[in-house]
Amino acid sequence: MRKLKIAVIGAGVIGKMHIRNLVKGVEGAELVAVASPSMSKHSEWLTSLGVVNQFADYKEMLQKVDIDAVCVCSATTVHLDIVRHVASLKKAMFCEKPLDIDYQRSKEIAAIVKEAGVPFQVGFNRRFDAQFSQLHKLVSEGEIGRPQVVKLTSRESELPPRGALQSAGNVFFDIHVHDFDMAQYLMNDTIERVYVEGGAIADPSRADEEGFVDTTVITLKFAKGGVGTVDCSLLAVYGHDQLAEVLGSKGLAKLHNTKPTTVEVFKEDGVKTDKPYFSCLDRYPASYAAELAAFADSVLNNKPVRVGAEDSLRAERVALAADLSLREQRPVNIKEVI
Amino acid sequence: MRKLKIAVIGAGVIGKMHIRNLVKGVEGAELVAVASPSMSKHSEWLTSLGVVNQFADYKEMLQKVDIDAVCVCSATTVHLDIVRHVASLKKAMFCEKPLDIDYQRSKEIAAIVKEAGVPFQVGFNRRFDAQFSQLHKLVSEGEIGRPQVVKLTSRESELPPRGALQSAGNVFFDIHVHDFDMAQYLMNDTIERVYVEGGAIADPSRADEEGFVDTTVITLKFAKGGVGTVDCSLLAVYGHDQLAEVLGSKGLAKLHNTKPTTVEVFKEDGVKTDKPYFSCLDRYPASYAAELAAFADSVLNNKPVRVGAEDSLRAERVALAADLSLREQRPVNIKEVI
Amino acid sequence: MRKLKIAVIGAGVIGKMHIRNLVKGVEGAELVAVASPSMSKHSEWLTSLGVVNQFADYKEMLQKVDIDAVCVCSATTVHLDIVRHVASLKKAMFCEKPLDIDYQRSKEIAAIVKEAGVPFQVGFNRRFDAQFSQLHKLVSEGEIGRPQVVKLTSRESELPPRGALQSAGNVFFDIHVHDFDMAQYLMNDTIERVYVEGGAIADPSRADEEGFVDTTVITLKFAKGGVGTVDCSLLAVYGHDQLAEVLGSKGLAKLHNTKPTTVEVFKEDGVKTDKPYFSCLDRYPASYAAELAAFADSVLNNKPVRVGAEDSLRAERVALAADLSLREQRPVNIKEVI
Amino acid sequence: MRKLKIAVIGAGVIGKMHIRNLVKGVEGAELVAVASPSMSKHSEWLTSLGVVNQFADYKEMLQKVDIDAVCVCSATTVHLDIVRHVASLKKAMFCEKPLDIDYQRSKEIAAIVKEAGVPFQVGFNRRFDAQFSQLHKLVSEGEIGRPQVVKLTSRESELPPRGALQSAGNVFFDIHVHDFDMAQYLMNDTIERVYVEGGAIADPSRADEEGFVDTTVITLKFAKGGVGTVDCSLLAVYGHDQLAEVLGSKGLAKLHNTKPTTVEVFKEDGVKTDKPYFSCLDRYPASYAAELAAFADSVLNNKPVRVGAEDSLRAERVALAADLSLREQRPVNIKEVI
Repeated sequence: MRKLKIAVIGAGVIGKMHIRNLVKGVEGAELVAVASPSMSKHSEWLTSLGVVNQFADYKEMLQKVDIDAVCVCSATTVHLDIVRHVASLKKAMFCEKPLDIDYQRSKEIAAIVKEAGVPFQVGFNRRFDAQFSQLHKLVSEGEIGRPQVVKLTSRESELPPRGALQSAGNVFFDIHVHDFDMAQYLMNDTIERVYVEGGAIADPSRADEEGFVDTTVITLKFAKGGVGTVDCSLLAVYGHDQLAEVLGSKGLAKLHNTKPTTVEVFKEDGVKTDKPYFSCLDRYPASYAAELAAFADSVLNNKPVRVGAEDSLRAERVALAADLSLREQRPVNIKEVI
Repeated sequence: MRKLKIAVIGAGVIGKMHIRNLVKGVEGAELVAVASPSMSKHSEWLTSLGVVNQFADYKEMLQKVDIDAVCVCSATTVHLDIVRHVASLKKAMFCEKPLDIDYQRSKEIAAIVKEAGVPFQVGFNRRFDAQFSQLHKLVSEGEIGRPQVVKLTSRESELPPRGALQSAGNVFFDIHVHDFDMAQYLMNDTIERVYVEGGAIADPSRADEEGFVDTTVITLKFAKGGVGTVDCSLLAVYGHDQLAEVLGSKGLAKLHNTKPTTVEVFKEDGVKTDKPYFSCLDRYPASYAAELAAFADSVLNNKPVRVGAEDSLRAERVALAADLSLREQRPVNIKEVI
Repeated sequence: MRKLKIAVIGAGVIGKMHIRNLVKGVEGAELVAVASPSMSKHSEWLTSLGVVNQFADYKEMLQKVDIDAVCVCSATTVHLDIVRHVASLKKAMFCEKPLDIDYQRSKEIAAIVKEAGVPFQVGFNRRFDAQFSQLHKLVSEGEIGRPQVVKLTSRESELPPRGALQSAGNVFFDIHVHDFDMAQYLMNDTIERVYVEGGAIADPSRADEEGFVDTTVITLKFAKGGVGTVDCSLLAVYGHDQLAEVLGSKGLAKLHNTKPTTVEVFKEDGVKTDKPYFSCLDRYPASYAAELAAFADSVLNNKPVRVGAEDSLRAERVALAADLSLREQRPVNIKEVI
Repeated sequence: MRKLKIAVIGAGVIGKMHIRNLVKGVEGAELVAVASPSMSKHSEWLTSLGVVNQFADYKEMLQKVDIDAVCVCSATTVHLDIVRHVASLKKAMFCEKPLDIDYQRSKEIAAIVKEAGVPFQVGFNRRFDAQFSQLHKLVSEGEIGRPQVVKLTSRESELPPRGALQSAGNVFFDIHVHDFDMAQYLMNDTIERVYVEGGAIADPSRADEEGFVDTTVITLKFAKGGVGTVDCSLLAVYGHDQLAEVLGSKGLAKLHNTKPTTVEVFKEDGVKTDKPYFSCLDRYPASYAAELAAFADSVLNNKPVRVGAEDSLRAERVALAADLSLREQRPVNIKEVI
């Protein structure tokens, strides 16, 4: 069975996670090399995993190693350069989200890969989660009739460090872009208008931090007439709360949090169960492996990728509109920002 | 044990419900008379329940029967006249919500009862539901720390008949006024700004009906900085879906739907449980009796009522702002409409 | 609407509960008198409830008050005398379980009421609980096919005081007779063989107490071939744990504990929900009122009672066999003890 | 990182499952060869997985390939011969349960491996399941105080083919040996007495089949005084129902079924969720990989295995006693059968 030879560029939190998955085994894929500008920091760890091909310069890596596809996990702002280079080599790419924190540059990326005609998948891993994909399947198959309302809960267990959000664009680009993609995916529709209410509510002491927003309620209006709401918090102390539901003309489909175990403890002071997982890495491990396996399958078997650059643009422009809505305290039509 | 002698004015759906509860037994209260302009229609039923004092004219009833308090269940637009008359007799009143569909008239009612100094309770029954009151208690006691986000789901099982909403003001006055009250009650805070997205989404064929809106997502901004979301549908075919949660600095408190039974049936094609109750009358029966018992307790023992005219005004002006927001597609500050 | 005039004999825990229900309102029934040998202790309380007819001697009560039916809540060992007397007056009876702690005397009671031809209902209240009756209904209607296995959990929150069980016969007569009735009711079948394993496991310090058994696992064999298990504890510190399920050829029907509220609290150390109710009085309040309403309906409308003396005998002889099984460490056939 | 070189003997359902896991990746282990007497049937499949070393004769395999440890997945009755041979080569063994269907031969296996001093782990995979191991951990750590009652549900989705159970010893050796191990593991205690009620209840048409029993209720008495119950069915049409709970002096710990997804669908006719998994292979996949990883860790790092031959003997003799109990309709003391 042929395996897709994947090289990872970037060894931060997400890069490491993909590397670990590839070493552990992703169906149809094998890790052949890793490049990171700060390779000296990662080298020992990579060696312990048996990763022999280590490079500080990704261009050098692409020259020296036999590579089918690249997994782009660098800082978001470097995506464009990498994509341009890899596309010129006509290699397939799996790229982390968002494409860029500047929507115009994201469009450039989309144009480059389209022109180059290389397979290009974006890392919206939640689509590959068993819960969310079952929900999507039920809605798509008409189980609940015509979809009318989508509702997402998107909460994190701890605040990002000072400055982190700003360097990642903002909370909408860095985190809620997942929710915008999921909302459109579940509704099989496009968001037309967005309104955001929120602020530094969980930690008002950071209200002065440029672009810091920890709590928002996002209202969505879809092209076919449906509506949606996403409630977001970066500081839900009990865990990574991830809920979704779609209300339709024939009923409601709803997923719940997965938890480490189902064990209940009944005592004199009440009944206790596990809290949700701590972070997306704990909650969605299988989905990260599954998205790479799907990517390998697409490239090896010449199938269209399951989440492309256009999907990312569709989510990123909602992020852009959401940021504008919050700043100007008004509903924003997506077409204003395209 | 002295019981409060209550007369009911109005024998529509809600009037009948209160009458039935009073006949069945509400702690501290007894039904002494009923008045309804269409008494001929209700007389036989009332007689079968043992209600002897039946009147077409409520003024006549108040003259002839020894009455401590009146339960106002008439059409909303008649509240003002009744309240004015009953207040002049210095009798206590329990009045269904909203006070009026015209906020200025509602303020008039509040002013009348304040001036008359009579006990006046408004029918926000959900505050007396065991689930909601436990949620409120936990939040008030600081169990989840400082409240940051309130989230309500408010869905009905079937659409109102054509014209019904308009004659009840609109969906915000008639139904979601309960949600506005609950949101403020749970957050122990006042709504400052509201934004509504929605329309005739469940039944687009009724888009032409003046004021018809079946599906909305309502965003709330509170005075102390918290936010909220209420997702509303008048056509959730699976039942009266009533959820609430409050996220705070120390955790989340959340209530679930109550259901007729806990029975699960496991079969080859899946596991099946009861759907939620059909309507508010099925879901909240105990709360309707409890609010009257609380009212009787307040009047008999000279305690302040637990939900007063001011509470109703606070919810009604949010309804007014919500309607404006939907019409003008913009966030509306509550102070615009006071 | 005519109401059944009920007199209660006995004002212990169960007697008080029925009195309270009747005062609060049981459909089709009204409380007309109470008799208790220790009336001086109860008189003030009864007067506060508005119960005028108070007697120390139940025979005097039956002479002096116009009574349709008697609710027998005396000490179990006195049931026989009372039943004999009331039957001679041809009045209907609702009698608490078990009929007697001596199976021969229970049979005498059954014979007396049969001969007298008076309506006679036994207090197996769980049959009137919404959860259990829904489970029974599903099984009876064939929803799960042919019933094969019944499983009950029957746990109490606290140990009875020293000596209490022995004076009530034993744990099988006093408590698990409910489970034996329920097992046969749900399976629509008769228990043929029983085996009990258990002892003073929760509180080994009471192993010396004659007849004290706090924890048992009871195995049941039914006439039509099905089997069952009841796990019992008198000391489940977290509450009155009451579960039931029936496995059949087409699936499984299962009920869960009802709880005070559905509220969940999510915090850093886990998710907490309500524990089950403390005792049968908290768990089954509606069923106690419902069984009296059903009794009133049977007597007033000349319908057969829903739980008769024969049902009680069927459960009591299982209790007798269970006690023998535990003492002799062997399975016991019910026909040995009839 | 050194990996344990494992060869699998046997390529039936369980052998294939272990082979698949080893190919997919088991931490610390690698598959180096497979032997099966019917290798011609399996060869193509093994080749497709990249398994090069294929043998019809396991002795030849052990001679020709560099092997650290053997995973014994042959027919149960051949275990003894294989174990004797492998032990003589001083290699570590992972052996499927039960050791044998004849308890005397099982004891022989235990004696051989003890004498040879080779690491020997038995395939009680449920101990490595996240749910069961969390339950065990809570009980061991004293979270629920002194354990008093253990309760297991053990149901299969479909009947084994005619003759299958008999050739596997009987239902107690083949299937419920898992439950006996788990009951003792959770209670951290030894079963002293067992009583079984049951028969061909789900499929009475197979009552004539020698040793066929599809439904049982098993009562357990433990050495330290606790009790237990296991309810078993081989035909629960809704799925592989696997429940466990332990009641202790301070509370109850209870696990629930895991299910494919958490998705709920609410419709007019009720709310539907996933049924449990179909079989142990679907329910426990992670535990099968985890037991092999633990075995590799034990062998590589010279730690005692986590489930040894003695554990298997302790469970097998309960199976033996259970079979006797059912045949003779009496409680059987374990010491009778040792």
